[in-house]
Amino acid sequence: MSPQAATLESTDFQSWLRSRIRQVEETLDQTLASIDVVPGRLHEAMRYAVLGGGKRIRAALVYAAGEASLQSGSAAPAQQIALDQAAAAVELVHAYSLVHDDLPCMDDDTLRRGRPTVHVQFDEATAMLAGDALQPLAFEALASMPIAPALVVQAIQLLARAIGSQGMVGGQAIDCDSVGRVLAQDDLQQMHRMKTGALLEASVLLGGIVAGASSSTREGLTRYAAAIGLAFQVADDILDVTADTATLGKTAGKDAAENKPTYVSTLGLEGSRELLHVLREEAHSALLPLGPSAASLSSLADYIVGRDR
Amino acid sequence: MSPQAATLESTDFQSWLRSRIRQVEETLDQTLASIDVVPGRLHEAMRYAVLGGGKRIRAALVYAAGEASLQSGSAAPAQQIALDQAAAAVELVHAYSLVHDDLPCMDDDTLRRGRPTVHVQFDEATAMLAGDALQPLAFEALASMPIAPALVVQAIQLLARAIGSQGMVGGQAIDCDSVGRVLAQDDLQQMHRMKTGALLEASVLLGGIVAGASSSTREGLTRYAAAIGLAFQVADDILDVTADTATLGKTAGKDAAENKPTYVSTLGLEGSRELLHVLREEAHSALLPLGPSAASLSSLADYIVGRDR
Repeated sequence: MSPQAATLESTDFQSWLRSRIRQVEETLDQTLASIDVVPGRLHEAMRYAVLGGGKRIRAALVYAAGEASLQSGSAAPAQQIALDQAAAAVELVHAYSLVHDDLPCMDDDTLRRGRPTVHVQFDEATAMLAGDALQPLAFEALASMPIAPALVVQAIQLLARAIGSQGMVGGQAIDCDSVGRVLAQDDLQQMHRMKTGALLEASVLLGGIVAGASSSTREGLTRYAAAIGLAFQVADDILDVTADTATLGKTAGKDAAENKPTYVSTLGLEGSRELLHVLREEAHSALLPLGPSAASLSSLADYIVGRDR
Repeated sequence: MSPQAATLESTDFQSWLRSRIRQVEETLDQTLASIDVVPGRLHEAMRYAVLGGGKRIRAALVYAAGEASLQSGSAAPAQQIALDQAAAAVELVHAYSLVHDDLPCMDDDTLRRGRPTVHVQFDEATAMLAGDALQPLAFEALASMPIAPALVVQAIQLLARAIGSQGMVGGQAIDCDSVGRVLAQDDLQQMHRMKTGALLEASVLLGGIVAGASSSTREGLTRYAAAIGLAFQVADDILDVTADTATLGKTAGKDAAENKPTYVSTLGLEGSRELLHVLREEAHSALLPLGPSAASLSSLADYIVGRDR
């Protein structure tokens, strides 16, 4: 058994997570324009897409990586604001990507987190435009962080690369082109690394950049991020076959029904669970040099892996 | 007759414009990933959308405003690179907005610059994703400008606001909601100011920021930008009724056929031409304090207005 990085007690982690979710949701509420601002219907759709719940794992990664990286142990007020804005930025991007993925020309999903998807609740044009407007709002949130401009620019470069044609959107494009085909495990891994992993990894590194992480801390964060980015997708694929629609809040078994390549279809259920275990050990091992300040990050790794139960 | 700002001789302006178009197209070609990079089909669609011609007016505004603002009279090498990247950024955003506007759930256009639109040439999902990936590429281009990070951050804030829900995308949302209704002139003006004006104005101000414009120069640029932002749309509306499909490279008379509100439907053809004349004088008057370095900017105003002939 590999050495374990320090983690939080289960109740401490739950309370840490609740508090960070509250923080990012307050920031999102303030960042999004009110529905009284013209065009009201567009702002209503943006708020519906962003504020309708969600696990806020990406925001939690920003906070946890930030807290693990602070040189002084606790965040200065300006750093705290910057962490809130970076956490909001990754959730805005995540929300936009879900809205566009759900559109009829993409996955054509009608249910998300137990509610009608944005194009069902509003209409297709409004859903597309809401996604289009959430993206610059994310960059505006980063550009407004009250920290050294050179760090702001680094953060923006990182996010822009992570969500572009060689990151999140590129992974989505490969996914679309692969429906009905069987992908080799390497190709499957590259697709997921881009589609889901890139934004999760960027969330971890953004927290580090904002908190002024040393280069050795950044190295640990990078290894951790790669492991949990992949673990997240493996856990998702397992959930798609083991959970039911009510638990998921979205249509279960959809990937299998559409003959979409998944880890379960490639490695089987047991093989996928073994991979998940290896990735969890890798994430913990990457955090060992960071010491006890990384406890919320290690707990997050367990949380992400534990989603298959 | 109002005093006129210095303009370039017609042949000098044509050669200035050709050279700036060449510069931005070289930068775009280098900024966009090659079609050999995975996912190749997505990169092919992005290149098709961006490199398929166009008047490059937004890029020209970045260059002209930058050249009018340089304190030292000519651009340092780093400033020149930054102007190229800012010019590329606004063209990437413009291209993304056209790809999404042309989609079936929006304007449902099949022809753009005399060629099939992206979703016709490729497919709807690829068109949506190509647009989605062009947007972060624009922010990446700005974030890579080799100038003071504080100016980079200002530039990114400006672009993000200009293309968000209270700028370009917001204007598009109002436009969608207004099909079949008659807008009052004030509402029409607000819609166009957001939909088309915001990015044109941002192009002018980006050039100023990158070149380190003084605050008095920025004031002149802001007045100029507001005037030409509106003039552009008025000229477009006039063209829609006076030009034919072959000249436009897109379907002529489409706005009128769809009962879309335009300046011509609100003010009539002569009224629209008078408004264009007033806006041209306002643009020239705003540039007077900038002196002869603003000659390419004043020529651009005439060029934008002259598109109705």
